[in-house]
Amino acid sequence: MAKLEWRLTVPDGSSEELVPESGWIHRAWMGLFQLILALKLKFLRFSEKIWKVGVDDPRRVFHCLKVGVALTLVSLFYYMRPLYNGVGQTAMWAVMTVVVVFEYTVGATLSKGLNRGMATFLAGFLGIAVHSLATQSGEKAEPIIRGISLFLLASMATFSRFIPTVKSRFDYGVSIFILTFSLVSISGHRVDKLVELAHERLATIAIGGSICMMISILICPIWAGEDLHSLVTRNMEKLANSLDGCVVEYFNDGRSETGDEEPCQKLQGYKCVLNSKATEESLANFARWEPAHGHFGFRHPWKQYLKIGTATRFCAYCVEALNGTTNSDIKAPDFIKKHLSDACKRLSSHSCNVLKELATTTKTMRKSANINLLVGEMNAAVEDLQNALKSLPHQLVMLLPPSTENEKKQPVPMANIPLMDILPLVTITSLLIEIATRIEGVVDEVDELAGLANFKPTDDQKPKQNQTIGQEAMEALQQV
Amino acid sequence: MAKLEWRLTVPDGSSEELVPESGWIHRAWMGLFQLILALKLKFLRFSEKIWKVGVDDPRRVFHCLKVGVALTLVSLFYYMRPLYNGVGQTAMWAVMTVVVVFEYTVGATLSKGLNRGMATFLAGFLGIAVHSLATQSGEKAEPIIRGISLFLLASMATFSRFIPTVKSRFDYGVSIFILTFSLVSISGHRVDKLVELAHERLATIAIGGSICMMISILICPIWAGEDLHSLVTRNMEKLANSLDGCVVEYFNDGRSETGDEEPCQKLQGYKCVLNSKATEESLANFARWEPAHGHFGFRHPWKQYLKIGTATRFCAYCVEALNGTTNSDIKAPDFIKKHLSDACKRLSSHSCNVLKELATTTKTMRKSANINLLVGEMNAAVEDLQNALKSLPHQLVMLLPPSTENEKKQPVPMANIPLMDILPLVTITSLLIEIATRIEGVVDEVDELAGLANFKPTDDQKPKQNQTIGQEAMEALQQV
Repeated sequence: MAKLEWRLTVPDGSSEELVPESGWIHRAWMGLFQLILALKLKFLRFSEKIWKVGVDDPRRVFHCLKVGVALTLVSLFYYMRPLYNGVGQTAMWAVMTVVVVFEYTVGATLSKGLNRGMATFLAGFLGIAVHSLATQSGEKAEPIIRGISLFLLASMATFSRFIPTVKSRFDYGVSIFILTFSLVSISGHRVDKLVELAHERLATIAIGGSICMMISILICPIWAGEDLHSLVTRNMEKLANSLDGCVVEYFNDGRSETGDEEPCQKLQGYKCVLNSKATEESLANFARWEPAHGHFGFRHPWKQYLKIGTATRFCAYCVEALNGTTNSDIKAPDFIKKHLSDACKRLSSHSCNVLKELATTTKTMRKSANINLLVGEMNAAVEDLQNALKSLPHQLVMLLPPSTENEKKQPVPMANIPLMDILPLVTITSLLIEIATRIEGVVDEVDELAGLANFKPTDDQKPKQNQTIGQEAMEALQQV
Repeated sequence: MAKLEWRLTVPDGSSEELVPESGWIHRAWMGLFQLILALKLKFLRFSEKIWKVGVDDPRRVFHCLKVGVALTLVSLFYYMRPLYNGVGQTAMWAVMTVVVVFEYTVGATLSKGLNRGMATFLAGFLGIAVHSLATQSGEKAEPIIRGISLFLLASMATFSRFIPTVKSRFDYGVSIFILTFSLVSISGHRVDKLVELAHERLATIAIGGSICMMISILICPIWAGEDLHSLVTRNMEKLANSLDGCVVEYFNDGRSETGDEEPCQKLQGYKCVLNSKATEESLANFARWEPAHGHFGFRHPWKQYLKIGTATRFCAYCVEALNGTTNSDIKAPDFIKKHLSDACKRLSSHSCNVLKELATTTKTMRKSANINLLVGEMNAAVEDLQNALKSLPHQLVMLLPPSTENEKKQPVPMANIPLMDILPLVTITSLLIEIATRIEGVVDEVDELAGLANFKPTDDQKPKQNQTIGQEAMEALQQV
């Protein structure tokens, strides 16, 4: 047997025996055919991937068309006018500006455009100053002054990019500053009509930049602020769904209560929350460059969204741990699980309500009339759960089968239910309580946002659903 | 009283009464003085910030000097040679290349340089092809062909930036591709000697790019790969310290065991792990452009570091939840805490040992001889903890004061120790067990790295400390 297997591994040995008359032409054909098949498969998979990129967010397609329009516009502008023949190479700067400045969101485009404009102006000014100093100081000193000034400015500007504030807001500006300054340093020596050149360059940058900004703002604008707003809102909703789904699944032993088709995807929502820090930060950075739009005023407190994001993530860490615990193999005794089940499910559903209400508050930018009640309900649920835990040993004793009742008239000790068996269950309750505490942190941050951004109070005509929730909450509070 | 308070809010009312002869000159002086003081304070704080940026990582200062040197070199190169007078504006491209391409790490510089070179070449080739097609097709069709080809290519190239692989590796290349293609499209019409121009531009880009790469690689190189390597290693160490510190602090009631001066900072180390995803990804992206250096071969499996990072973060989420739980106000009864204390501390210190051994393995790039033993020890500690939990009710009964012993000869029920009191304690043990499971995930990933990167086995002469750990582990295994 061992010998036979050994033989089978000889390359092509077996297939040649099976098809003895095929020859190399047939093999070449087959190889080519397989290659084409493989290529076709790869191409199909790649197209599918590309298709998904567009379908996931159709605004991407619009963005691409907008870039095409801006670029064609600016190049035709120069192409059509023989009047600009004199300007020559300067037209290039307009095209370059469009290519480099046009970004996905309005904020990013404005940030890059303004950075480019300001940096060019500043560096041009400084460059001309150094240039006139250099030309006046004799032939020997000239290259030394130029070299040293360039070296110092480039090093200092590069260093400034490591300062976090500069990095996040003016990174592109600094690189354009270095670029313009060194270009002036060189071309100043050759061209000798620097001011005119600087004027031309600023004008072309202004043309390119304003075309970008106009198209970016006027045609289907993609606001970084709006994206940040909906990202933060969506994250709260995702977290709420994950939390509730996770708990319900554990207590129903894997059966989803709502009969959703994609419970798994819903449960994994918290993972998006865990990984959204970098996106939130870059969006907040761009959002602050944007003018007032939609519901957002000029100085909308975008930084507060980052704080909300952080607080939400703080909850998400616990939900992650909770999710890990619910997958444990240890099964708690059914009657204990049942005893805690209602309290746990109530707490998770109330926590979920609070998170969803916070999401709605943030989304609609209206102060919630119910949030205090909902938080009260959540805290009441925490107390209920704590009471359920406190009463657990008593409960255990009561629940023991009645047959032992007459034998000793003594409560039987808990020794037969080792702590080990209820470990995941206890951990889940503990994490649920911790999550409720952390959700209060989110409540505070959203409250601060409501203050900073002057959220209006909700209309008197509340939606019916909220009203009933409010009544339930009142009843719950009265019961406690 | 209310009236007096009302008066005090009148602007400057009270101060004028107190200093009646000062007049406006004095006030102006004081104002100016305060302004200068405030500015000085701001300046001092800012300088301190800048100083810290340099001190935190002195390589940053070197990087800045390197940029200065590269830029001065390339500009003097063109400044000194009247021979290049004919080239004129082309010198600009070399300067531009240096400014734009020179990045902090070697990988980033290479990635940008190669992207720039390849994209310019490709776009120039395509641009000339379209240009010759356009010029041959009559005056009316020419602008249409140019416009449509520019629009289509710019849109498609912009769209490709949304594909994750392109985004992470060729983002800069795509933008240079669009830029060059549109420049050729325009200047092709005006200059009429495109090939020569393309040749010049490629040559200057090559000069600028190679100066960058040479300086970046030869003078104090900063390798992205090395940074990634040490970031991942350091994160494992930080996590180990946080985990152990957190548990020891809880069981020693806030007293640090080692008497460290900065236990707080050590405890917070896991936070760095939580937030390092974006940095890891960008470093891994750049690392793959780098040539072989130090211990790292040409095709070093950088992607595997990302997997290790993810597994480490997976542990960090639990450590975060653990940290939240240890800060709970609920105090467990002392004798139960004592009962579990040893087992918990042992488990956390063994988990910590495994993490540190993994960090050493990764750092030294040598297969660990002890890792299996250490994991065995950790698992034995998990079992010990589980046994301690299992025996807890028995233990409780045994530990009851002997005075009750003679009254009924019956074990007293546990009703007097409600589950609520031991909630955090039980949660901590449960999370510790979960963390041990997750650490095994890190072990697997590091093991895979060892396989992929051909880690050598450790020398026969093991360090003494490891040997004793190994012996302890053997003993521990024999005991179980």
